[in-house]
Amino acid sequence: MNPVALTIAGSDPSGGAGLQADLKAFHAHGAYGEAVVTLLTVQNTRSVSAVEVLDPAFVLRQIDAVIDDIPPHAAKTGALGSAAVIEAVASRARSFAFPLVVDPVMVSKHGAPLMADDAVDTFVRSLLPCAHLVTPNLAEASRLARIEVRDADGMERAARAIAALGARHVLVKGGHLDGDAMDLLWSDGRATCLRAARIASTHTHGTGCVLSASITARLAHGEPLVDAVAEAKRFVRTAIERAPGLGGGCGPIDLFAPVSPVRDRPANTPRS
Amino acid sequence: MNPVALTIAGSDPSGGAGLQADLKAFHAHGAYGEAVVTLLTVQNTRSVSAVEVLDPAFVLRQIDAVIDDIPPHAAKTGALGSAAVIEAVASRARSFAFPLVVDPVMVSKHGAPLMADDAVDTFVRSLLPCAHLVTPNLAEASRLARIEVRDADGMERAARAIAALGARHVLVKGGHLDGDAMDLLWSDGRATCLRAARIASTHTHGTGCVLSASITARLAHGEPLVDAVAEAKRFVRTAIERAPGLGGGCGPIDLFAPVSPVRDRPANTPRS
Repeated sequence: MNPVALTIAGSDPSGGAGLQADLKAFHAHGAYGEAVVTLLTVQNTRSVSAVEVLDPAFVLRQIDAVIDDIPPHAAKTGALGSAAVIEAVASRARSFAFPLVVDPVMVSKHGAPLMADDAVDTFVRSLLPCAHLVTPNLAEASRLARIEVRDADGMERAARAIAALGARHVLVKGGHLDGDAMDLLWSDGRATCLRAARIASTHTHGTGCVLSASITARLAHGEPLVDAVAEAKRFVRTAIERAPGLGGGCGPIDLFAPVSPVRDRPANTPRS
Repeated sequence: MNPVALTIAGSDPSGGAGLQADLKAFHAHGAYGEAVVTLLTVQNTRSVSAVEVLDPAFVLRQIDAVIDDIPPHAAKTGALGSAAVIEAVASRARSFAFPLVVDPVMVSKHGAPLMADDAVDTFVRSLLPCAHLVTPNLAEASRLARIEVRDADGMERAARAIAALGARHVLVKGGHLDGDAMDLLWSDGRATCLRAARIASTHTHGTGCVLSASITARLAHGEPLVDAVAEAKRFVRTAIERAPGLGGGCGPIDLFAPVSPVRDRPANTPRS
């Protein structure tokens, strides 16, 4: 039986990011995907030309319809758009009986705002404490921790500060630092560095979405967090290497990349 | 290189139908999926409790953004909602340089209207002539052909009438007739019957979406129409047999079912 994974995210019609990419990553990892829509965009690999955030009541109705009928084994959030949607999602996330991965999407790869400025405080206060794992990049970690993050030390300080705000585990993604691509996982009071040689590529559209979706799918299978993060990162890295070169801008990565088998699944969790 | 397939369809957050199921079917068939949103629903396997049709201008902007940047090798339409959205989609479909599969979705499995009553005439006049293939079930075929379809003879008469309205090829799905599950493909002035033993199952949520999406993905790979239809039908049949039993109502089918290799791909079309 395949486990169930839920994304609560925005739509990218070009398919490289957002709920479209999440559903592909879930499927690639053998999880049945559900997708609640929070906002709609007009975008392609070159630009985001429109963002329309949905009414929070409509987002809630979608969440309730899905969770009541086919409860997921793990869920993630992506772009949420407004403080009202964040508050609505958090109101349900408080009682989720499954791990929630929170990707604190603030701006698109092209700089389009996907979380209103006044929404960051709401996010920190209401949704962050519901996160089993939160996956900020450097800019998002700086904003959440109120620390300017410029190096590995800063990443650890930011991760510790974000954990103190209530997130259970924190993955700070260092992709934009110089040198090797280094991510830092803060978990149970301990930092683990995940290093990989940098790949020079402009085709990185949706990498954050795919990473958090892949972790979510692996958690849905019952994989321990550290393994889920390491294997999801390996998947994304291969997907970047194999990027098909679609589009005239920052193109999508290859979600047909090979997926490592899920490790150490406890006997009583769903099978893939 | 994986070919690109586009769906222009509504959202089913529970993941069994709509653009969510289309993206999974595309991925299962090795096609890169794009998904333009036409309408949003609140639904699960038990009921559809809300339908919100998008502004046609917003649908058009999504189509233009996607087609300009990552042109697909094949596309499909699903639920379109209003006459205005149908008109908008048709205005672009007239100049599509790739085959378009039109699933003339009129009502959901639970009876929720997904095409306004006054939209059927618009559909027949504007979108049907753009269809490389149209895939009505018996009720939809009756409505489009203005013939009450009750048996195989009626299916052939309806298919012929729908072809006369401008669709290049017509697949009338006989799933709701008594006896074996028989579909009729009308192509180049000839009827081909596709028969399969009936499967008794309540888990058939999204079968129409998955069938048309699977055909679309196979056309994107360059497979000839008759093979694409036959193999997509085989995939859906296996997916019904393997339905995971999710949800309290009409549950989703298993999109992890095996996919037959694409046949007879001409040398100059994209490889899977």
